[in-house]
Amino acid sequence: MSKKRKLGRGVALVGAGMSPFGMFGDQDSKDLFVEAFQSMIDSVDRGLDPKDIDAIYLGNFTNDYFVQQSHWGAILADTLGLVPKPATRVEGACASSALAFREAVFAIASGYYDIVLVGGFEDMSKQTTEEVAEGLALAASPYERQAGFTFPGVFGAIATAYFDRYGATREHLMDVTIKSHNNAPLNPKAQYQRSIKDMMASKIERAKKQGKPVPDWNDEKQFLSDPRANPVVAWPMHLFDCSPISDGAACMLLVGEEIARSFTDEPLYVVGLGQASGRALHAADDLTYFEATRFAAKEAYEMSGLTPADIQFAEVHDCFSIAEILHIEDLGFFKAGEGYKAVEDGLTRLDGPRPINTSGGLKCKGHPVGATGVAQLVEVWEQLRYKAGKRQVRSGNLRIGAAHNLGGTGGTCTFTILERR
Amino acid sequence: MSKKRKLGRGVALVGAGMSPFGMFGDQDSKDLFVEAFQSMIDSVDRGLDPKDIDAIYLGNFTNDYFVQQSHWGAILADTLGLVPKPATRVEGACASSALAFREAVFAIASGYYDIVLVGGFEDMSKQTTEEVAEGLALAASPYERQAGFTFPGVFGAIATAYFDRYGATREHLMDVTIKSHNNAPLNPKAQYQRSIKDMMASKIERAKKQGKPVPDWNDEKQFLSDPRANPVVAWPMHLFDCSPISDGAACMLLVGEEIARSFTDEPLYVVGLGQASGRALHAADDLTYFEATRFAAKEAYEMSGLTPADIQFAEVHDCFSIAEILHIEDLGFFKAGEGYKAVEDGLTRLDGPRPINTSGGLKCKGHPVGATGVAQLVEVWEQLRYKAGKRQVRSGNLRIGAAHNLGGTGGTCTFTILERR
Repeated sequence: MSKKRKLGRGVALVGAGMSPFGMFGDQDSKDLFVEAFQSMIDSVDRGLDPKDIDAIYLGNFTNDYFVQQSHWGAILADTLGLVPKPATRVEGACASSALAFREAVFAIASGYYDIVLVGGFEDMSKQTTEEVAEGLALAASPYERQAGFTFPGVFGAIATAYFDRYGATREHLMDVTIKSHNNAPLNPKAQYQRSIKDMMASKIERAKKQGKPVPDWNDEKQFLSDPRANPVVAWPMHLFDCSPISDGAACMLLVGEEIARSFTDEPLYVVGLGQASGRALHAADDLTYFEATRFAAKEAYEMSGLTPADIQFAEVHDCFSIAEILHIEDLGFFKAGEGYKAVEDGLTRLDGPRPINTSGGLKCKGHPVGATGVAQLVEVWEQLRYKAGKRQVRSGNLRIGAAHNLGGTGGTCTFTILERR
Repeated sequence: MSKKRKLGRGVALVGAGMSPFGMFGDQDSKDLFVEAFQSMIDSVDRGLDPKDIDAIYLGNFTNDYFVQQSHWGAILADTLGLVPKPATRVEGACASSALAFREAVFAIASGYYDIVLVGGFEDMSKQTTEEVAEGLALAASPYERQAGFTFPGVFGAIATAYFDRYGATREHLMDVTIKSHNNAPLNPKAQYQRSIKDMMASKIERAKKQGKPVPDWNDEKQFLSDPRANPVVAWPMHLFDCSPISDGAACMLLVGEEIARSFTDEPLYVVGLGQASGRALHAADDLTYFEATRFAAKEAYEMSGLTPADIQFAEVHDCFSIAEILHIEDLGFFKAGEGYKAVEDGLTRLDGPRPINTSGGLKCKGHPVGATGVAQLVEVWEQLRYKAGKRQVRSGNLRIGAAHNLGGTGGTCTFTILERR
């Protein structure tokens, strides 16, 4: 893993879009993907004739099991009217579409294709919560599952270990949640459109109107500490520590670097790539970091010649609040054991020096698992191109953003760095 | 699809191996893959230190649904002791590992990786036949499934259309089956180790010993025409027209062309690649060919500068007997409507001018669906390196072989041409 990686041909991003994320009982995977595709096409400054697409890469995790339909490459190529263009589905649990993105990059860098569509999608909300927990647990290792873990339990164990090691508390997890809920209402495609403060106020208002006992919440942390508002799922993971069940799709257009400017004057360039595998928790000697994230980050930093200090903002895989804290440490933004303090000090807020999950993150933008990897990069695209509207990062001249995606309990981790030149 | 494709860096095959194919109640996906991996390592003339592997690509189709476990990239990276090497699972129905092979090729051709492990595996035999039929139907399109089709039905409809158009009969399908059953006993890893003639003789022998009525079969076609020996599944697909339920794994080692000779003096080179998507049967105006196979073949021929006449032997996706006939036409080996006559005339036999499915094919070597794409290429490797033992193709100086893989009812088709220089 210590080799310095490079691509034989540069790859640029010239379009990106996504469907709204949420729970859409009347939309299936095809509907969601078509919406993301249209949104991507609209983003290509000089337009795209879909016939020019050479190939399609798709990330999806759970459709085999939940929807009982496989072979989505062929289905979506047909749905988009792109037959006979080749379409390949990639699966790496919740990192599925970050892996699809890498394959699209390699396919172009190899010289074989010039213009590649990459996307991800997931259709989860037709399942019950119990079914989703069970289905997502297919990505845990057989050993973790034998021990009776589903993901809230796994991340509960990780949080407990982190608390024990570094002295963090549930209040620090709340800082993550409050920040995500502050960012999401600024993102029109996010699943949750209210801050914790707004939710709290509206619950108080409703209680008053209905003549019921008025909760005595004076601030957001009191609200999040109240088990009526924020019940425990697997201690210390409470409801507001967990990303939701979501439907959604995202997609992007990647092209060979030398043709990028025929699509736009503002292409982004893929300057850092990293992917690594990790062992399951039973084999970890320490639960307070993800080794695979560290390897993926090292690879991407070495490839790009950049350091953590160069990453101006990032999307990281906050499937659970504790995960965001681990990732910002593993990616080198903050030292091990200091991530929670950075969040507490507001360093990762939208107006802080290192904004994290400006989109609202998995927690509030939503987490349609197979869509997430590409959707994170859609946020990086919008920020670097100053199209992020009310949640636009304002600190300085934006040039470099990154996304970190995680599958399982760190079984698959990726880190991708995009640059605007 | 009319662009001529090329790779920026040549890719060579320097090792290949597989587990035996069959029904192995006591082996799971991990066991099967480890066996294939060891077989591959043994095939690398100058040896391989597994630590030198940069990345892993895996094809698997049904494990999410049958085994209720996803995220096999991470699991197998761990099983093989290769963590933190990145591992990516690709799914394209029964073409899953041919797609994984392409991703491995692109990853090397991109310059990013030098040494890549690619494999496929499937664990099917713990399911009942009905469960397998239902699970595999996840790869049919939603439209085909709404019409009540599972795969024997789909290929039955295709066979009927072909019979109607070209005047072929069930006897021609039997020619395919008889040939496959003649080749398989020459392949020690094949699931079926007996020719139709041997099976027939042993059934007659048994009836005599047991004092039961002795069947009046004088030749293989009488045996295959007898519904007691060869019951109908979905007319005209009888039992012996259908590939079996199989467990198995296969894998290969791909490297950058310029380092190939540090592994072996006899590398093979990836000279032709093709992949295309097709629409489901409801959208086909003609059931007697697979348009996606034709597109994939055109792409691979154009890339390689070769013509169908140059392909000295091939493995083609004979999930059902009729499929083999369509493929040898779609790949240009024989004209449309003449494939069945070529089989009848023995042109595709091991000792014929164009041997097809020397391994025994999916029908007799076995069809662990996610393993098949790579396993076909393992056969091409063994033939081109004169390691195919009793089934070695003897016609002339072997230089070029190919493999054709199909997912669903032609939703995903690939064609791959390997060359020995």
